[in-house]
Amino acid sequence: MSIINSKTGKVKKDYTVEELVEKAKEMRAYNMVAITAAGSGHTGGTLSIMDVTAALYLKEINHDPANPDWEDRDRVFWSAGHKAPALYVALGEAGYFSIDEVVKLRKLWSGFEGHPNRFKLPGLELSSGSLGQGLGVAVGCALNARLEKKDYRTFCILGDGELDEGSIWESAMSAAHYKLDNLTAIVDRNDLQIDGPTEEVTRLEPLVDKWQAFGWHIIEIDGHDMKEILNALEKAEKVKGQPTVIIAHTVKGKGVSYAENIVGYHGIAPKDGRSGKESLDQALKDIGDPQFNQGKVDHLLKIASDYQKEVDQKVEDSLPKFSRDYWWNVTSLMQVQMEPTRNGFGRAIEELGKDEKVIALGADITSSIRMDKFYASHPERKNRFFEIGIAEANVTLVASGLAKEGKIPFIGSYGVFITGRNWDQLRTTVCYNNFNVKIADAHAGVSVGADGATHQTLEDISNLYYLPNMHLTLPCDAIETEKATHAIASINGPAAVRYAREATPIITINTTPYRFGLANVVRYRTKKKNFIEAFETRLSTDYRSEKEDLTLIACGPMVAEAMRAAYILKEEYNLESRILNIHTIKPIDKPAILKAAEDTNLIITIEEHQVGGFGNIIAGVIAQNKKYSTPLLMDMIGVEDRFGESGEPWELTKIFALTAEHITQRSRELYKKKK
Amino acid sequence: MSIINSKTGKVKKDYTVEELVEKAKEMRAYNMVAITAAGSGHTGGTLSIMDVTAALYLKEINHDPANPDWEDRDRVFWSAGHKAPALYVALGEAGYFSIDEVVKLRKLWSGFEGHPNRFKLPGLELSSGSLGQGLGVAVGCALNARLEKKDYRTFCILGDGELDEGSIWESAMSAAHYKLDNLTAIVDRNDLQIDGPTEEVTRLEPLVDKWQAFGWHIIEIDGHDMKEILNALEKAEKVKGQPTVIIAHTVKGKGVSYAENIVGYHGIAPKDGRSGKESLDQALKDIGDPQFNQGKVDHLLKIASDYQKEVDQKVEDSLPKFSRDYWWNVTSLMQVQMEPTRNGFGRAIEELGKDEKVIALGADITSSIRMDKFYASHPERKNRFFEIGIAEANVTLVASGLAKEGKIPFIGSYGVFITGRNWDQLRTTVCYNNFNVKIADAHAGVSVGADGATHQTLEDISNLYYLPNMHLTLPCDAIETEKATHAIASINGPAAVRYAREATPIITINTTPYRFGLANVVRYRTKKKNFIEAFETRLSTDYRSEKEDLTLIACGPMVAEAMRAAYILKEEYNLESRILNIHTIKPIDKPAILKAAEDTNLIITIEEHQVGGFGNIIAGVIAQNKKYSTPLLMDMIGVEDRFGESGEPWELTKIFALTAEHITQRSRELYKKKK
Repeated sequence: MSIINSKTGKVKKDYTVEELVEKAKEMRAYNMVAITAAGSGHTGGTLSIMDVTAALYLKEINHDPANPDWEDRDRVFWSAGHKAPALYVALGEAGYFSIDEVVKLRKLWSGFEGHPNRFKLPGLELSSGSLGQGLGVAVGCALNARLEKKDYRTFCILGDGELDEGSIWESAMSAAHYKLDNLTAIVDRNDLQIDGPTEEVTRLEPLVDKWQAFGWHIIEIDGHDMKEILNALEKAEKVKGQPTVIIAHTVKGKGVSYAENIVGYHGIAPKDGRSGKESLDQALKDIGDPQFNQGKVDHLLKIASDYQKEVDQKVEDSLPKFSRDYWWNVTSLMQVQMEPTRNGFGRAIEELGKDEKVIALGADITSSIRMDKFYASHPERKNRFFEIGIAEANVTLVASGLAKEGKIPFIGSYGVFITGRNWDQLRTTVCYNNFNVKIADAHAGVSVGADGATHQTLEDISNLYYLPNMHLTLPCDAIETEKATHAIASINGPAAVRYAREATPIITINTTPYRFGLANVVRYRTKKKNFIEAFETRLSTDYRSEKEDLTLIACGPMVAEAMRAAYILKEEYNLESRILNIHTIKPIDKPAILKAAEDTNLIITIEEHQVGGFGNIIAGVIAQNKKYSTPLLMDMIGVEDRFGESGEPWELTKIFALTAEHITQRSRELYKKKK
Repeated sequence: MSIINSKTGKVKKDYTVEELVEKAKEMRAYNMVAITAAGSGHTGGTLSIMDVTAALYLKEINHDPANPDWEDRDRVFWSAGHKAPALYVALGEAGYFSIDEVVKLRKLWSGFEGHPNRFKLPGLELSSGSLGQGLGVAVGCALNARLEKKDYRTFCILGDGELDEGSIWESAMSAAHYKLDNLTAIVDRNDLQIDGPTEEVTRLEPLVDKWQAFGWHIIEIDGHDMKEILNALEKAEKVKGQPTVIIAHTVKGKGVSYAENIVGYHGIAPKDGRSGKESLDQALKDIGDPQFNQGKVDHLLKIASDYQKEVDQKVEDSLPKFSRDYWWNVTSLMQVQMEPTRNGFGRAIEELGKDEKVIALGADITSSIRMDKFYASHPERKNRFFEIGIAEANVTLVASGLAKEGKIPFIGSYGVFITGRNWDQLRTTVCYNNFNVKIADAHAGVSVGADGATHQTLEDISNLYYLPNMHLTLPCDAIETEKATHAIASINGPAAVRYAREATPIITINTTPYRFGLANVVRYRTKKKNFIEAFETRLSTDYRSEKEDLTLIACGPMVAEAMRAAYILKEEYNLESRILNIHTIKPIDKPAILKAAEDTNLIITIEEHQVGGFGNIIAGVIAQNKKYSTPLLMDMIGVEDRFGESGEPWELTKIFALTAEHITQRSRELYKKKK
């Protein structure tokens, strides 16, 4: 069947094989324009799955773009959510929306999120992006069909790197156990994942044997041969008594000369050494869809840039306004250097690597989180680096085994995966055993940007804080991250450092005081030619109250925003703010917090996290003050019990109301109540 | 090699095959006495692994009981931590401690925890108990041997049910990838798990093919044939270039007539319809170790009972004392019915099952958490029950697929596994998709008892509260649990109900007001012939302040302790307490909390959870009161940032200072500051 009218049952369009081949070209072209316009996105894996996608959405599955929730439609689950652009162009081609819209990929509010959000576009079955989860959902959906005696088929698109995840094998076992012959999985076997070829990251072969032993029927095909694809999909339908997996052998980056079979082309936009536009031109030339002449491409890019301009305006309008613009680097007074905190981790892990006891473990995102600095300039350390793959449970366990034997292992990934996917392993194996495992809780917060909600950890403070034996630090900038990483390495026991991907202000210097477990007090003094020179920082134990009007208690890169807020509060309203930089969340500096509450009676907490994960800890410290005297006003700034979304990092900081401008506004409102 | 003197290298004792067979008998006998004395424990799985255990600890591995941390020792990781008694008797036989000590199994402070705690006994390599985690630790340990050019071997004991866990397959992949020929896994293939035969729970066969496809060398043996066992262990040592798995075909309950091959004998003490003692006698007769005459058995049981008496005394001494004894049911005034909250869940799920949309999913602990009530008296519902096995990630995903299609699926297990092991699945697949999945967060808190820390969830409130779209309820007794379960079933979206295993006081009646999202106010009025008649309960919205002296804010079965504390506070000190029963944690009843803070200025929070997981939320609500007026005293009672341990449920409630007596004492201390 194919795209049909769900009311009449009539096929709306029946493509020939040749037409599908042409459509796949068109889809590749749109895909490349969209990723170029976004400036980021998964070039390699979308191109490898594109022919399968065209076959599925334009020929194989029963669906009706005019009735996306039609109950008899076939269901396709994209477990490999990062391939979203391929899905979007397919939905566009099928008629769910104008295909030109896909060039708004990864832009704020466009719906074309970095990873699919099922509430934002028609035709999406699942919000996905955390690998290894789609197959189990497909199992549930297929079980439902059986229960309801429905004929719909269920498909699941899997990446090959994703097969590292144990949850895939749980789901595979389950599908076979229930003999789900209405379920077809398709593995995009392009042989590459982020950290290298799959067989180097963690060997998947003999892959056919694995699926067979897990009870599946296997069909192997050339994933770029349209006839073979269609044939396989038809054959899969006829297999009875067991689920079928189609292992589609593909080429990562297929169709774009400079991206084919290149490991580096996992998650980046087209660039072959030239500008984005020139790289796009080459890509389109390689793909060879004649429609994509300069006029069309310019038209599409203009849709994207016009949309972005609208977004820019709306975001700007959402910011509270003051007598002048205090944004970073708009004037020399607000001048700061910007550097991602992950770089500080990178410098520290490189230095720490001198110690033979220090081990680094990879979870297929080694370079981006700067774990690669451990060995990048030190090839002799490669024997102390163990790649485990996309298997956060196992990386945690292997690290535990090494820690048990006296090593100091570092594990790391996107924070949500390395503190959440492995939470029970952290609890029971790491913390209960008090193993000396160090966690690089990387790419934290909404500032991850265009990847969207699935990749933006906003729950790691609460997940880690309540674990006995855990230590947790959220340094404020790259320099402090370097110090904090050294600090956690020197602790004997589980410890995590939370850091981020995006460049944020450098607000400390090497000689800024730092002691793990103690807060820093930061005070705005007076305008200076650079931003950071306008501030004075002391250890909390060295600070004497100046009876400030209020206290801003912040952690991580939010400290920079708090400092800017202190600046604005003084310059605009003559209010003095004490800033507590709580770089160490566990153990937390209770005396510094209590003192601030007593001295100022007005506390604002600021976190790039679900609000209260940090703020409630502070409230709890203050509430347990045993003096019956201090009336207090308190407010908490953070993400308001919602998931993140795709957008530029600073756009997100603004729309999630985490900027100095918002802090200033909320502080002032609260201060009015104190007077 | 074997048990050796690590200083001289001399073998201390070299057992013959015949001697090992006899030793295994002795170990089985000790095992049965210990489990009988404990009153709970894993009869089936310890008996199935006992011959392998004897071979390993008395013959195969190099170790020195006089030097447990000897760096060249072979390492054995018990991934299947519930087989701990087998490990303990082996360590006793090997000389790590007097073997008679093992009869203190599962008793408070004895060190012989329900699941191994490596800090409490010599010879334990790993604190384990959450299944699926040991193999990865063994991989890390084996990698360390290679890195350090050490000859020690690494072993890992796996249950077969445990192979449901995907993390096992992650670790298996990793071990093969690194060609860890110094690693040997042993699968206790007894074919049974809690919910039934492994092949019915979730099919593992063809198991040999699975391990082979994952790159392992396989040796299959009769796990009760000592020669075969020794032979296999020797052969495994010679395999080069890949890890070896020994699949030991065993009989669950081996050696004890009434337990052999009986599914029910997973986690219970000997009882074949007769008393514990008679069942033990039969077991010992079956085992046939002549040493175990009545004199010896009585001697051992006396060690256990004497020890328990000492514990009883110490626990009793730790309780704050008052003019009289206010413990549950010691007088008619304190008379309550006791029932586990899980029964309330059972009644609700049975009733809810009438709705064809309601689905129940099993995670191999279906009956104990009362999920079986869904189908127990309703065989026609069996088609709506899906057993998934020990695969909490997958059960969450399958439920999501069903919820997506309009079903109302319930998943459940020990809380730590069904909210922690699957945390990222809950976050990304369930909550981000806002799927209508219901979570039975069962066996929560330290009151789980003898299983110990690994099974006592104390972090689920914080893990769930900060998840957008989640709903969370902690009902106070079995009756309220029934109401709460109905309440979460009627919500559209993710929702969890936390309940417990142990019987706790019934403190509500069917007509007690209950509204999801609203707190109840409970007030002690005057002595009545029954405990609960002495109290009045209203919805928070129906309550008018009586300017009480203090407020006790509690959740779950801690509400009963708070009520008893209110009773004591009034009778002993003439203090009036308002009790807030916060059965709904998310969304939380902010007005009720703020009102209590304003009216009484003194708040004590009480949670059977890491302290602050609940208390800090309350503190956060109060702190954000926008009035600048109320001085406040606050204290939080909970588990003080530590893991639980093995013991009787009420013993643990006492030593973790969670009783009314402790609440009373802390309330009074705080109240003195208010005056």
